[in-house]
Amino acid sequence: MPKIVDHEKRKKQIAEATWKVILEQGMEGATVRNIAKEAGLSLGALRYYFSTQDELFVYAMKLVKENATERINKIAASESPPFEKVMAILLEIVPIDAQTMAEMEVWFAYVFYTRHKEDVFAAKKDEIFKGMKKLLLYLQERQILRSSLDIEIETERLYALIDGLALHALLEPQRMDKERIVKVIQYHMKKICIDGALVEGE
Amino acid sequence: MPKIVDHEKRKKQIAEATWKVILEQGMEGATVRNIAKEAGLSLGALRYYFSTQDELFVYAMKLVKENATERINKIAASESPPFEKVMAILLEIVPIDAQTMAEMEVWFAYVFYTRHKEDVFAAKKDEIFKGMKKLLLYLQERQILRSSLDIEIETERLYALIDGLALHALLEPQRMDKERIVKVIQYHMKKICIDGALVEGE
Repeated sequence: MPKIVDHEKRKKQIAEATWKVILEQGMEGATVRNIAKEAGLSLGALRYYFSTQDELFVYAMKLVKENATERINKIAASESPPFEKVMAILLEIVPIDAQTMAEMEVWFAYVFYTRHKEDVFAAKKDEIFKGMKKLLLYLQERQILRSSLDIEIETERLYALIDGLALHALLEPQRMDKERIVKVIQYHMKKICIDGALVEGE
Repeated sequence: MPKIVDHEKRKKQIAEATWKVILEQGMEGATVRNIAKEAGLSLGALRYYFSTQDELFVYAMKLVKENATERINKIAASESPPFEKVMAILLEIVPIDAQTMAEMEVWFAYVFYTRHKEDVFAAKKDEIFKGMKKLLLYLQERQILRSSLDIEIETERLYALIDGLALHALLEPQRMDKERIVKVIQYHMKKICIDGALVEGE
């Protein structure tokens, strides 16, 4: 049994080394050799855990997704008022700290890398779209969303806004800092919610 | 004199070959060797026009930008009513046809590639932000924008929306087709403009 734990633990270490290499050198620097070096392993040892580079990338991205999902589920299960809850979930997706920034950068690099390898990585791309829709339907159910809205288009709008902000947080961090990101999302959410939806604070 | 024209023409041909290679094989496939092959040139001939790969990329991206700027300036100089004009300009930025789709893909690939080479490529990143602000100020001046809006935050919102839509058009083209892109942008613009801003059509 402890051996299995060690096995998973080692795989996570390798995944973390992968993120680090992608962050520092971009996807083109994320060779098996560089990743093994970063993880302090021999090439042979790394190949014991992941027989191909693509296998390693798929695992590393699965971890990114699991980490984000775990954080989001925790917020969803909390006792926060609906507006605050949705705001907190959205802020888990947009990179506002070192951890989410690293995840997002790796995610984008990976998504572009896999653009030309569709056969290898059959990612379900509309999962986040569906997640965004769920958030809006939740606000609608709680009668916090304005009644005149087109949910389908509002979902696309929110999804594009969030991904656009994520992109700008990565690429233009001087202007697009945490405070500004929060301000833009809150501004947007207030526009689509009824007055007084935000119970406390500003 | 004709020699200079030929020189520029050949450079454009090479830039177009570069886009094609990036589109088909991603940034990691865009080696000088592959680009020379696509352009039907020897490595030596290509090196005569561009002594380094980075020099070639910088030129290819400058062309992307010039093409987009030219299209936008043409619209800006046209006689269209303000709302339609702004819509048309926004639709030049979001990829809705093969040409703009290719440009955007190459642009994103390039932006991520250069993330780790900040010293080589000192791009002025907030140019598009400023362009978006200009569009909103133009609508405000024409008294078409709603009066209660925060221009700074509305600029960030529009910019993020447009880049998010561009990203989704590239990565999730099954769902995010041209019709849907137009619908989302028009929906957003109508929300921030006064009723009746859209003079003709739907």
